[in-house]
Amino acid sequence: MIKDIDNLKVKLAAFLEAQRPLYTQGKVADYIPALAEVCPKSIGACVATINGKVVGAGDYQVPFSIQSISKVFGLVMAMNRIGDDLWQRVSMEPSGQAFNSIIQLEWEKGVPRNPVINAGALLVADVLTSHFSASKLAFLSFMRKLSHDDSVYIDCHVYESELAHGNRNAALAYLMKSFGNIESEIPEVLSHYFTQCAIAMSCEQLANSLLFLANKGIDPVTNEVICSPKDAHRVNAILSTSGMYDQSGEFAFSIGLPAKSGVGGGVIAIVPNYGVICTWSPPLNSFGNSVIGTNLLANLAEELGLSIYH
Amino acid sequence: MIKDIDNLKVKLAAFLEAQRPLYTQGKVADYIPALAEVCPKSIGACVATINGKVVGAGDYQVPFSIQSISKVFGLVMAMNRIGDDLWQRVSMEPSGQAFNSIIQLEWEKGVPRNPVINAGALLVADVLTSHFSASKLAFLSFMRKLSHDDSVYIDCHVYESELAHGNRNAALAYLMKSFGNIESEIPEVLSHYFTQCAIAMSCEQLANSLLFLANKGIDPVTNEVICSPKDAHRVNAILSTSGMYDQSGEFAFSIGLPAKSGVGGGVIAIVPNYGVICTWSPPLNSFGNSVIGTNLLANLAEELGLSIYH
Amino acid sequence: MIKDIDNLKVKLAAFLEAQRPLYTQGKVADYIPALAEVCPKSIGACVATINGKVVGAGDYQVPFSIQSISKVFGLVMAMNRIGDDLWQRVSMEPSGQAFNSIIQLEWEKGVPRNPVINAGALLVADVLTSHFSASKLAFLSFMRKLSHDDSVYIDCHVYESELAHGNRNAALAYLMKSFGNIESEIPEVLSHYFTQCAIAMSCEQLANSLLFLANKGIDPVTNEVICSPKDAHRVNAILSTSGMYDQSGEFAFSIGLPAKSGVGGGVIAIVPNYGVICTWSPPLNSFGNSVIGTNLLANLAEELGLSIYH
Amino acid sequence: MIKDIDNLKVKLAAFLEAQRPLYTQGKVADYIPALAEVCPKSIGACVATINGKVVGAGDYQVPFSIQSISKVFGLVMAMNRIGDDLWQRVSMEPSGQAFNSIIQLEWEKGVPRNPVINAGALLVADVLTSHFSASKLAFLSFMRKLSHDDSVYIDCHVYESELAHGNRNAALAYLMKSFGNIESEIPEVLSHYFTQCAIAMSCEQLANSLLFLANKGIDPVTNEVICSPKDAHRVNAILSTSGMYDQSGEFAFSIGLPAKSGVGGGVIAIVPNYGVICTWSPPLNSFGNSVIGTNLLANLAEELGLSIYH
Repeated sequence: MIKDIDNLKVKLAAFLEAQRPLYTQGKVADYIPALAEVCPKSIGACVATINGKVVGAGDYQVPFSIQSISKVFGLVMAMNRIGDDLWQRVSMEPSGQAFNSIIQLEWEKGVPRNPVINAGALLVADVLTSHFSASKLAFLSFMRKLSHDDSVYIDCHVYESELAHGNRNAALAYLMKSFGNIESEIPEVLSHYFTQCAIAMSCEQLANSLLFLANKGIDPVTNEVICSPKDAHRVNAILSTSGMYDQSGEFAFSIGLPAKSGVGGGVIAIVPNYGVICTWSPPLNSFGNSVIGTNLLANLAEELGLSIYH
Repeated sequence: MIKDIDNLKVKLAAFLEAQRPLYTQGKVADYIPALAEVCPKSIGACVATINGKVVGAGDYQVPFSIQSISKVFGLVMAMNRIGDDLWQRVSMEPSGQAFNSIIQLEWEKGVPRNPVINAGALLVADVLTSHFSASKLAFLSFMRKLSHDDSVYIDCHVYESELAHGNRNAALAYLMKSFGNIESEIPEVLSHYFTQCAIAMSCEQLANSLLFLANKGIDPVTNEVICSPKDAHRVNAILSTSGMYDQSGEFAFSIGLPAKSGVGGGVIAIVPNYGVICTWSPPLNSFGNSVIGTNLLANLAEELGLSIYH
Repeated sequence: MIKDIDNLKVKLAAFLEAQRPLYTQGKVADYIPALAEVCPKSIGACVATINGKVVGAGDYQVPFSIQSISKVFGLVMAMNRIGDDLWQRVSMEPSGQAFNSIIQLEWEKGVPRNPVINAGALLVADVLTSHFSASKLAFLSFMRKLSHDDSVYIDCHVYESELAHGNRNAALAYLMKSFGNIESEIPEVLSHYFTQCAIAMSCEQLANSLLFLANKGIDPVTNEVICSPKDAHRVNAILSTSGMYDQSGEFAFSIGLPAKSGVGGGVIAIVPNYGVICTWSPPLNSFGNSVIGTNLLANLAEELGLSIYH
Repeated sequence: MIKDIDNLKVKLAAFLEAQRPLYTQGKVADYIPALAEVCPKSIGACVATINGKVVGAGDYQVPFSIQSISKVFGLVMAMNRIGDDLWQRVSMEPSGQAFNSIIQLEWEKGVPRNPVINAGALLVADVLTSHFSASKLAFLSFMRKLSHDDSVYIDCHVYESELAHGNRNAALAYLMKSFGNIESEIPEVLSHYFTQCAIAMSCEQLANSLLFLANKGIDPVTNEVICSPKDAHRVNAILSTSGMYDQSGEFAFSIGLPAKSGVGGGVIAIVPNYGVICTWSPPLNSFGNSVIGTNLLANLAEELGLSIYH
């Protein structure tokens, strides 16, 4: 795929400049004040390869709120901790619904459709709070280990803001609890969940953190086994069918990579056996995905021929 | 991936023998008499590669009713005929619902979620009936060309049976028409749809017919362009997120290939840059997918390391 | 309640004049051309009592398309014909959904929530087509008998128009048939249904026709038993909980009478032990109920203290 | 209607004895331990008239958990307190759904369909907690005043039990809060709601308490105005279309009175201009309504010709 890293650097910068003016085509998430304050013109992109190359452009070293991208890490932690028991409590099917829809959760009797919609991520948060004595700390440590960077931090301002506007997530969590599918107390689950969403990381940190998913579960820098090859496969499969909210099908159709977006404007995409791409631009489309971030992934995937579907 | 074709033949036969007793774990489709009559012990599998190798086992040369597998071919015909206009009338998102659910179609105001659920396939059938003077004949010709086999035929017994039990599909079609999303007369659309579902083909014929999807749109035997590389990519993406009804996520999670099943017991899976696998065993699981057919695909995918997600 | 019939005549005329300018507050049904052509300024009202008094105002003798008001008569015919078997095939619960929603019909596995939503009325039409050798003629005869007026007729222009735009009703009917809840052929059911909807009657004719429901099943003019007291009770109950589409609760809350509206702009209300009120004004509100017609009923119900809830 | 009170006493006792063996046909509510402990053979009935007659049979003076019957009183309190502002926050339409369904609440964007489903009653509880400095005390005082009995009490055992199993109601409340339709803190709203549900009253106390609804808003004993005639009308209308959960239509169809049931096994029915009937028998049918309680109401309504629909 990628041969000439200098060439990629030039290409990436060019793609980014071409996209820069389009920040007006989306809308910065405003459901919590802390996110609404982010500068809509922020733009960054980073490609990290399993061979140790890193290419960035724009604000690729500026930390932003990772939000739902944290669901990927939480999922890996939960899979490692309780194994296949996890799949008794959450399915792995695309939802076919808006990401925070409570309707489907009722239909499915408290079993979330997959671990990357909000209900599923709350269930994963319950697993973590139930099985770690200090789940928030464990989560932060995991992120720091994966990114090889101890400066990764929790943005307390975002955390407080989330907590103050978390009624819908509380509704999802209580509904699951009413079906007996949540073990911990809800406030504890929500507190963990909002903590992991409030972690701030840069494109570069995120891309580095996820290389194990492109490398059969092994961190290519340390050679540490982060998860089994099978679980890396499973996470990639889930991200392919469900990672981009209710635009996942279109993303597969037009770009073709396992990916996950967050309402902070970040998007990560896994390229098996190659590396990870992370983009960041706060303005979102109607599905909650970064407009420019998605465009940049399309540019890169086409330029480098990265899709898994051909 | 595959190096030794003789070895594969042995493996395939062994997998098949191991699965043979499991036909009791599923239930042969009985919504129409013509399908209910099929012997539940039928079992076949075939691998065809873009390099011209074909390996089969069991009843791999026995024709069966292709049913929903025909949706793949109809989709390609419609894409070729009307181009991107198609995507104004049908989405490409996973449905998150049972394959013939009318609820989602109402929610989405007559626009099917994707072209491989029944509503979407009926919409594609409408495109074909509207844009071909003799759509059934055109469809059959397409199938014969792709399989390089003029013996492919329409099973009239199945067709009549479908027609007599087609009320639910009629409901879907009339609902789309009420939203202005169907051009032709409904009886004509249904007649086309049931005709394509009633085509009988063997595992070998099906595997050969779909090699173009593993080969960027080009028939590797004739070098004819069947569709653009982009459209081959798109079909594979849709099959990956939505091809196995409401078990598509689990199929991606555990096997990891673009695939499509039919209630006749057939399943096809595309392996990009490698080939096509087709399995057949009539007993279905609760999602409408062949129990043994899915198991055989899992065996082969694992043995040959075929998943697109690692 | 009503003592002075001359006084009522004056009051009714005054209410009508006060409402006359409000025809701009609604929208004439335009889903079929034949209804869209009706003059929006048409306005009429008629009160008929079981003691034989009739008071009218405005266009109360002008025939209009009775549309869904026909569901009341169809229901009575079906109850008379097959008795309690009817309630095996249709429920008597409010729908909580828009009147033509197909979603609920799928949920309830082809059993309509009540006989006055479209699905339920189509089921009733199936009963009539299955149990009368000439159901349309039987229906028309029933209407003429009840109104004591052989001039009641079917508006063929409306009928043709309905038939040409009946795709949604066809979808409902085919869906019920797919669940085995329709006996006749769908085109026959639809033809009957559109015929009864296309009957043209005036406020006066309608009010007279329904007196039996205010009189324990007995036509007060002829003393003929039209239905049992129990069935009159049941029809009134259904009209009270479900007769005004998804505004039935509000209608009960603010007016308090068993009632049924049609998209032709007619509304009938039963006042047990007193009589029937029929109003007509084509412009509809967002629920499909006549704006002025509803207002006139509110005026009369309050003036005469007619509500059943106090 | 009723002439001979001694005769009624005999009839009532006879109906009750005939129903007594049928307690096995239902199932005592077991979602909370405190309700599951109630003796399934308990049976009582009481008729109170606006003329001051009271006739009882069986355990009609034994207090039981009034549960959802409390919704009627909460509604009256809220209407009195904030007037028509209430109807900006809750509708008055039948729900067409199971009584605690969260699906509809999402569809309707946090506005409950009516004040007697759980979501609506929680909204009413929010009004009370927001507008009374001590809402629980105010509620209890209201109940004691209406029943002219200061012995009415809150069953703390039931309250604690409700609180411990209130996850589904919490989900409903948080969902409404996420739509901005709840003012108070959720734990406070739930605490009020579970308190009012946990009030214990006998058939006799309940029947006496609700006479104002049969008497245009006036307590016939004290002549105090409890609510306006219009609001009495409105409450009766809501109970008629929605008071018996998803069996409200059938109850209107077969019995024909404004009524409200609770999962404690109580049912109250309002007979305008006549009085109130209250029955009690813990075993419930699949809709959550008392089997025997409903039967007894049917007996009485037929015997006394009480229906409002004829």
